[in-house]
Amino acid sequence: MASHHSVDAGIAWIDGATRCLNEEDVPVRAARGRALTKDIRAAGPIPGMDRAARDGFAVQASASWGASSYNPVRLPLIAVTAGEALPAGMDAVVPLELAEPDGRGSIEVVDAVTAGANVERQGAVAASGATLSTAGTRLGAQHIGLLTDAAVSVVQVVRRPHVCILVVKPVKSGGWEDSNGPMICAAVERDGGVVGACVAVGRERTALASALAEAGADIVLLIGGTGPGTDDQSAAAVTAAGELALHGIALCPGETTGLGRIVSGSPVVLLPGAPAACLWSYELFGGRAIRRLGGRNAELPYRSREMATARKIVSALGMTEICPVRNGRGDTVEPLPSFAETGLVAAVSADGFVIVPEGSEGYPQGARVSVYLYDKR
Amino acid sequence: MASHHSVDAGIAWIDGATRCLNEEDVPVRAARGRALTKDIRAAGPIPGMDRAARDGFAVQASASWGASSYNPVRLPLIAVTAGEALPAGMDAVVPLELAEPDGRGSIEVVDAVTAGANVERQGAVAASGATLSTAGTRLGAQHIGLLTDAAVSVVQVVRRPHVCILVVKPVKSGGWEDSNGPMICAAVERDGGVVGACVAVGRERTALASALAEAGADIVLLIGGTGPGTDDQSAAAVTAAGELALHGIALCPGETTGLGRIVSGSPVVLLPGAPAACLWSYELFGGRAIRRLGGRNAELPYRSREMATARKIVSALGMTEICPVRNGRGDTVEPLPSFAETGLVAAVSADGFVIVPEGSEGYPQGARVSVYLYDKR
Repeated sequence: MASHHSVDAGIAWIDGATRCLNEEDVPVRAARGRALTKDIRAAGPIPGMDRAARDGFAVQASASWGASSYNPVRLPLIAVTAGEALPAGMDAVVPLELAEPDGRGSIEVVDAVTAGANVERQGAVAASGATLSTAGTRLGAQHIGLLTDAAVSVVQVVRRPHVCILVVKPVKSGGWEDSNGPMICAAVERDGGVVGACVAVGRERTALASALAEAGADIVLLIGGTGPGTDDQSAAAVTAAGELALHGIALCPGETTGLGRIVSGSPVVLLPGAPAACLWSYELFGGRAIRRLGGRNAELPYRSREMATARKIVSALGMTEICPVRNGRGDTVEPLPSFAETGLVAAVSADGFVIVPEGSEGYPQGARVSVYLYDKR
Repeated sequence: MASHHSVDAGIAWIDGATRCLNEEDVPVRAARGRALTKDIRAAGPIPGMDRAARDGFAVQASASWGASSYNPVRLPLIAVTAGEALPAGMDAVVPLELAEPDGRGSIEVVDAVTAGANVERQGAVAASGATLSTAGTRLGAQHIGLLTDAAVSVVQVVRRPHVCILVVKPVKSGGWEDSNGPMICAAVERDGGVVGACVAVGRERTALASALAEAGADIVLLIGGTGPGTDDQSAAAVTAAGELALHGIALCPGETTGLGRIVSGSPVVLLPGAPAACLWSYELFGGRAIRRLGGRNAELPYRSREMATARKIVSALGMTEICPVRNGRGDTVEPLPSFAETGLVAAVSADGFVIVPEGSEGYPQGARVSVYLYDKR
């Protein structure tokens, strides 16, 4: 492991090594959360014809002129419900409360309507050729509704990234139960990836190199064996199986993160085996790569907000540090014991976290900081 | 349909009619996004024993005292990797760079260490009995990692609400293709519900009442046929199949929303058939019910932020109106054509929306308003 690279250098490497995957066809109904690869335009006007905007009776507006409660006008009874096409020749809808059926196929209208009244005109929602959804959009319920309504049944979306997770066995693996694999699987799924495999591998260089060489995936996450010890062969295995680009990043927790590629060209992210370091290395590098491959927003998938510090936040100069925080009085946050001290407990106790960049020693009390917030409910 | 009820009255009815469902056992690995029903405590200290906090050599600290580069101290070579238990009798770890193996089973230590140096003490992460995750928490990757590490393999979480969606056929159903069902299915899944059935039913009262009576679900969403027209029998069908509590809510779009129960006690939400009204009625009432049943945060699942209006936002007094907005210059929003005018196009073109309560006629230019934001990427 050479001297530490900056987090920014790691992010730049990830961004250079990943781009949006190719597209696939998916039925609109199954496309929630997927990212469109191209704009979708209306094949015709929406609605395709003039239609009733509310329940009532279709009329020719001019025939209602002069109608009042003193002078009801008798017209043919043509009931229409909201959304229904207006019958030919009709150009307005008289609402239910302004007409009375006479029981003999006619209505008595007690107020005049103008042409177009209570009618949704052809093309009112969207003209033919109008953009219904733009490339890059992640589809939500509203898009699925609109596109189905516009008779679009299949959409082109970015393929979901296939992820191979290799978990390096510890030196003494008797009774060992891996917790990093399940944790990272959950994070990959959150980020839109598909876990193709999550398997344990021996920590010897040859075992690791052949597991890497066989990994048919859009990205490989290799967890553990990333440190400087003689039993730590993950970095050497990446070198043997392709190219190790960066190893050792000034990130706490996550110092032994590594980045590289296997011969197929797929990126490999080396995640440290210590759980909190594994998580943060994933969030900043592995997750970013997966989000980019899948056409999602590359940034951390947490909402962030500017808040004041209720107590000072201390961080080591020269390291980007992830500092867990909890809500204080008012709109403030205060630091919790670090990830280095309490591991994942910090992540589950915290209301959020602050990222202190490597050039900073932290923030004094009362400083305005950008806080990433966990959604705990 | 009687006089309009307020949105607040509708929300109060939903809150009174729904409470968190019972729990079920789920493997931790499959529990991402699920809500815990009880606190989870550590069955023992974490870690369960003193373990190496970094790669190096396990030593008895006192044996290293006096060591320096001028006076290396020879000690037995006991290599440990981070996370590994300290061998009996050892109480510190000498980092790799401060010791040199001599190739004959010993190391030469060039700096003294104190007891506990580079050791993660038993219980440092969590004491036995400490709370690892609290009831109500929606599990994220970090919880799955921590709980697996603590040898918790199964958790008790709120059962996912089963939802029956009944879509009322239009009066003229030839060539009709429903878009509300797919849209609402997507929204239900987003909110953690399981769509047990999404079926079209005839609009006659008897057909609807028997479909309602047969709906075995935690909640029923009945879409369409909610208006005042003679062909609109959804409200009457709920009365026939149970109890119609409220019909007609001062919400735009979504005026013909209805709320009630079927005989089994499950709530029924009547969603208007016009797509934008259907969506908003779902968001405020149906979705809220599903989120509550599933133990989630009941509020709208959008992040919100206070922003200034770049142009005035106009709304009718007496109606709660959902106003689509787009980002303006700086930290501002400006109104877009309403949902009433452009239907779902407003929802897909907008960057977010503002909810103008029924007692307000809108906001002047420059007002600070709470904006709900769509995540479009």
